[in-house]
Amino acid sequence: MHEFEIIKKYFSKLSLDNKSSLNLNDDVFFDKSRKLIISTDTYVEGVHFINFNNPDLVIKKIIRSSISDLICKGVNPKYYFISGSGNNNLFSKKNLKLITKSLKQEQNKYSIFLCGGDTVFSNKLSFTITSVGFSKRIVFRNKARLNDDIYVTGNLGDSFIGLMVLKKRITLNKYLNKYFINKYYHPDLQINLSKKLLSFANTSIDISDGLISDLEKMINNQKLSYKLYLKNIPVSKNLNKLISAKIIKKISSISRGDDYQILFTASPSKSRIIFKTSRSLGIKISKIGKICNHFQKPQIFNEKNEIIALKNKGYFHKF
Amino acid sequence: MHEFEIIKKYFSKLSLDNKSSLNLNDDVFFDKSRKLIISTDTYVEGVHFINFNNPDLVIKKIIRSSISDLICKGVNPKYYFISGSGNNNLFSKKNLKLITKSLKQEQNKYSIFLCGGDTVFSNKLSFTITSVGFSKRIVFRNKARLNDDIYVTGNLGDSFIGLMVLKKRITLNKYLNKYFINKYYHPDLQINLSKKLLSFANTSIDISDGLISDLEKMINNQKLSYKLYLKNIPVSKNLNKLISAKIIKKISSISRGDDYQILFTASPSKSRIIFKTSRSLGIKISKIGKICNHFQKPQIFNEKNEIIALKNKGYFHKF
Repeated sequence: MHEFEIIKKYFSKLSLDNKSSLNLNDDVFFDKSRKLIISTDTYVEGVHFINFNNPDLVIKKIIRSSISDLICKGVNPKYYFISGSGNNNLFSKKNLKLITKSLKQEQNKYSIFLCGGDTVFSNKLSFTITSVGFSKRIVFRNKARLNDDIYVTGNLGDSFIGLMVLKKRITLNKYLNKYFINKYYHPDLQINLSKKLLSFANTSIDISDGLISDLEKMINNQKLSYKLYLKNIPVSKNLNKLISAKIIKKISSISRGDDYQILFTASPSKSRIIFKTSRSLGIKISKIGKICNHFQKPQIFNEKNEIIALKNKGYFHKF
Repeated sequence: MHEFEIIKKYFSKLSLDNKSSLNLNDDVFFDKSRKLIISTDTYVEGVHFINFNNPDLVIKKIIRSSISDLICKGVNPKYYFISGSGNNNLFSKKNLKLITKSLKQEQNKYSIFLCGGDTVFSNKLSFTITSVGFSKRIVFRNKARLNDDIYVTGNLGDSFIGLMVLKKRITLNKYLNKYFINKYYHPDLQINLSKKLLSFANTSIDISDGLISDLEKMINNQKLSYKLYLKNIPVSKNLNKLISAKIIKKISSISRGDDYQILFTASPSKSRIIFKTSRSLGIKISKIGKICNHFQKPQIFNEKNEIIALKNKGYFHKF
C-alpha cells in the first residue's frame, strides 16, 4: 500500500479535525493558535543511510534531513529531539564523541538546540528525530495554483552521485569522489531563504525522495498537473562534467532524492521578487516548469522541446 | 555506561543553557516561555514489549507509557506523534485496523490527538512516540526536600505479574491471568490527578522502570536519601492473594516496573490536602516513606521494623 493511502484510509480520522492542524496531509504539524510546528522522522540503517561507519557524517545528514522539513515551510527550526536505537557499538565512547561533536556543529550552523531524546538497546540501528519550530504562518502543501511557476533552489543530483560513489556503483577521480560524497552527507539547506518563502511561495516541499516524487506529493490532493523543462533543472558544474562525459544522463540524475533543496510554486507575478531575493541572498533559484490543468498528463521536455520519459521518478513509500 | 552518565558526559552540553529548559535532566522538555512540554520515547520489540501478536494491546501500552511522562509532571497531554518501523506485517490491513482502533480509544480516553508520524520499513519492529502538552508550570525532578513524605498513586506490581504470566513464568487461574495481563497492557494512568499535583508535589516521576529505580532517578542529582515502609507500599487485592499464598514475596513484586503510577514527594504540611484530594477524586494515594539526609543509606523497613534488602531495584538503562 502507498504511504498516502495508509494515512488517508487509516490515520487521517485520528487527527485534529479543525483548521489549525494539517490533518496529516503535510510533512509537518502546525498548531496555528500556538504558532507551533513539529516534524518527526525515523532513519534506519540500510534504508536511510548505508551504514554507521562514519557516525559524524550520518548524524549530520539525518539532522539536516529532519530540519529541512521545517525550513522548506518557511519555519526556522529551534529545538530537536533525537532517539537512538542500537547495540553497544552505537553508544561506544568513540561514537558518542563523534556524534556529539557533529550535533554541536549542526547546532551552531543552524541555531538549534538538543532538548531531549531516548537511548534504546536494539540489534537494529535507527534514529528518530523530532524538530520543533515556531511561526505565525507556514507554506502548506497542496496549495499550488493553475499557471504557477515551479521553482527549485540550489542544484539537484549531486547527492545521488555521492551515494553511487559510496555504493561503488561509479568510480571517479579523488576530487570528484570527495565532492559528491560531501554533497551526499552535507546537503546545503537553504535556511536563509526560509522566512522569505512566506512572501511569495504558494506551496512548497523539500526534495528528499526525488524531484518528481516530491513534486507529485506537493500537489497530490489537487486537480493539477505539471510541465518541466530539463534544460532549466539546475545541476552543479561537477555533475555537468559527468553529463558531458556521458557518464550519466541528466534525466537519470535529477530525480533520485536526498537533495534537500526547496521545491515551490509561485504566481508568475512573483517572478521578479523571487529572482531579486535570489540575488540578494546569493541563493540559486531556478524556474523549472509550470503548474497546468489536470487534463494534461505530466510532461518533461528536453532541449529540443520533445517530451521525454523519466524512468526513475524517485522514491515512493510503499508497504 | 549508565544512561545518566551518557547524558551528563556527552549530551548535556548540547542542551539549552537557560532556566526554561531542563538540561536533559528530566523526562520531559519544558519551554516555560511558550508553556510547551515535549517527551519522546522509543519502544522496541523484545525490549519494551514481548511481541506484536496483539497490536491493539501493545499500541495502548506504549501510548500510555508515553503520555504518562507528561501526566506525572502535572501536564495534560494534548498531541502525540507516532513513528513505526517494521516489516510488511506491521502495515497489514488487519494490523492497521487494530492499531487505529486502539489509538482512537486512547484518544477518547485521554483527550489526545494524532498529529503526525512516520512509517518506515525495517526488519526490526519499533515505535517512537512523541507527546506534547501545554502548561504554565510543571513538577520537576530533583526538587525533593529533606523530610518530605514520599507518596505513590494506585497499586504497584500488578503489571509485573502480568508480564510473568505472558512469559509463562507463572501460571494462575483464568480470572487472575486475565486480571494481571490486563494490568500489564492497560496501566491505570492518573490523569485526573495530574493538574492537582502542581499544588502539593515538590518533585515527581512516573514509575516505568520500577519503584526504587525511579525513586533514585527522581533524586539522583540531590544529596538526599530515603526510607520506605514495605507495609505501606500499595498492592492490589489480587496481588495480595498471591503474596498470602506465598506465590511471590511482596518485596519481590513492588519494584519491577511498568506500573505507570505517579511517585512524588511533598512537605508533611501537605498531608491533609493530599488525602482530601485522594478522597474527592477517588484516586488511591499512599504515603510510603520519607526523604532523609544523604548521610544515611537508603533503607526499606519490613513490618517488624527490620531493614530488608531489595534484590531487584527495577530496570536501569545501561549500555
